[in-house]
Amino acid sequence: MDIAYFNGKFLPKNEIKISPDDRGFLFADGIYEVIRWYNGFFYDMPGHITRLKRSLRELRINLDNVDSLSAIALDLIKKNELENRQAMVYFQITRGVARRTHNFPSPEVSPTVYINAWGFAPDTGSMESGIKVMLKEDIRWTRCDIKSIALLPNTVSFQEAYENGMKECIFVRNGLITEGSHSNIFFVIERTLYTHPESNHILSGITRKNILRIAQEAGIEIREDALPENKIRYTREAFITNTSSEIEPVIELGGNTIGDGLPGPLTRLIRQKFDEEITAYKAPEA
Amino acid sequence: MDIAYFNGKFLPKNEIKISPDDRGFLFADGIYEVIRWYNGFFYDMPGHITRLKRSLRELRINLDNVDSLSAIALDLIKKNELENRQAMVYFQITRGVARRTHNFPSPEVSPTVYINAWGFAPDTGSMESGIKVMLKEDIRWTRCDIKSIALLPNTVSFQEAYENGMKECIFVRNGLITEGSHSNIFFVIERTLYTHPESNHILSGITRKNILRIAQEAGIEIREDALPENKIRYTREAFITNTSSEIEPVIELGGNTIGDGLPGPLTRLIRQKFDEEITAYKAPEA
Repeated sequence: MDIAYFNGKFLPKNEIKISPDDRGFLFADGIYEVIRWYNGFFYDMPGHITRLKRSLRELRINLDNVDSLSAIALDLIKKNELENRQAMVYFQITRGVARRTHNFPSPEVSPTVYINAWGFAPDTGSMESGIKVMLKEDIRWTRCDIKSIALLPNTVSFQEAYENGMKECIFVRNGLITEGSHSNIFFVIERTLYTHPESNHILSGITRKNILRIAQEAGIEIREDALPENKIRYTREAFITNTSSEIEPVIELGGNTIGDGLPGPLTRLIRQKFDEEITAYKAPEA
Repeated sequence: MDIAYFNGKFLPKNEIKISPDDRGFLFADGIYEVIRWYNGFFYDMPGHITRLKRSLRELRINLDNVDSLSAIALDLIKKNELENRQAMVYFQITRGVARRTHNFPSPEVSPTVYINAWGFAPDTGSMESGIKVMLKEDIRWTRCDIKSIALLPNTVSFQEAYENGMKECIFVRNGLITEGSHSNIFFVIERTLYTHPESNHILSGITRKNILRIAQEAGIEIREDALPENKIRYTREAFITNTSSEIEPVIELGGNTIGDGLPGPLTRLIRQKFDEEITAYKAPEA
């Protein structure tokens, strides 16, 4: 039976009762994080906790003991017997339960804290085959830097890609490629690695940050500049990044073949460095 | 004890258990309506049901028996002993409960249907005093025509207005005034009534539509055109409309005094016609 955490308690997940007055349910007034467990360690838990704190701060949700969340995540891994496999932990924090008003509850109420974990089987085939992704106008709000649960625009956009056999929906805003519905995107032009800079139009991905660091350490030139849609043809390689797919080579973007239509050398190099880091993290456990 | 409706059953509201896997809670993947009960009848229930159907259709949420919702609403008014007072009924429908994936559940799951009702004491003072409202960049997504529960942008924007002693936050997109965080806005310029046309940048308010009809019937000239922010100074009157406040005169907009800083004659006329309709609706009940 799945065990989850809800407002201070570990419970069978099916016993958890979200109130219909929860502002997460009524207003999407909350934030989330998804953290990966590599049979032995969490990938960049400090990065996720830092971003979670920022999201809470931006929405002015006051949660005590944020730093205890990582211990709860580890407890959930153990209680669900996921220690020795790959898994995901999901944190969701909402502003709490209150009579429905657009303004924040006054007096303040306790945030709702919900955490669960599940075993995860990564899809590894796409590293060789590459993926095709859709391009679509960015319909989201202008605070994409907050990892909020107001994900309806992301789900309807991704669904369109999914139904068209595409693995992600990449957004274009004002002619510039921003990011995917649940990933960041990188491009290689003349051996320089490009990705959209941190701004209110993208979520600052944990994998994105680590890839930038890894690329820099590997001596790859980096530019945090947005790629205009009309410059796609100059792109020799592209890949998306996120917690669950890590790095996936993009071989077709909005109908445009990228490079030779195969995962490119820089993508492979970065992927290799990323994998080496994961292996090195694991080593101390052995 | 409050009685609410949840997935086919009338239950004490505090016994309702929203699953943490509800897509309303995880993704804001749902829609809502708020309908007003004037001690004896619902205000334009057909208008609300038509809009609700449109929202469901736009999001491809398949709900059977949508037309039965109005009977459930009436049952809730009775079960909560609200027949002889003013009340609100709230409908929320989400895509349902499923393992968390951005794509829609496959196979499809049953939507979650939640309906509740509460007694309501209208704030009538603002008709004489008028209200002050804030102006702010529209940070919302570009499908504001769907009455979705992805309301985080609306709540954070309204909260800013609220903390500044303002009664609403009015949005500006690309230099044009769109609507409020939970209202539509009308302007009077040279005895013509202006409001933003139906588009993906506003929600087509039920009160908005009825006000347009009432104004037309009263021989007032109407133009569904957006007011540019830089034309505010030409405005002699302004008012906001929604289900709970009906019509509220705006006397100050983003620091600009509107007209003489008092509710204007056209606003009063429209308000009077609106009130007459409500009274006429009530008459058959007497």
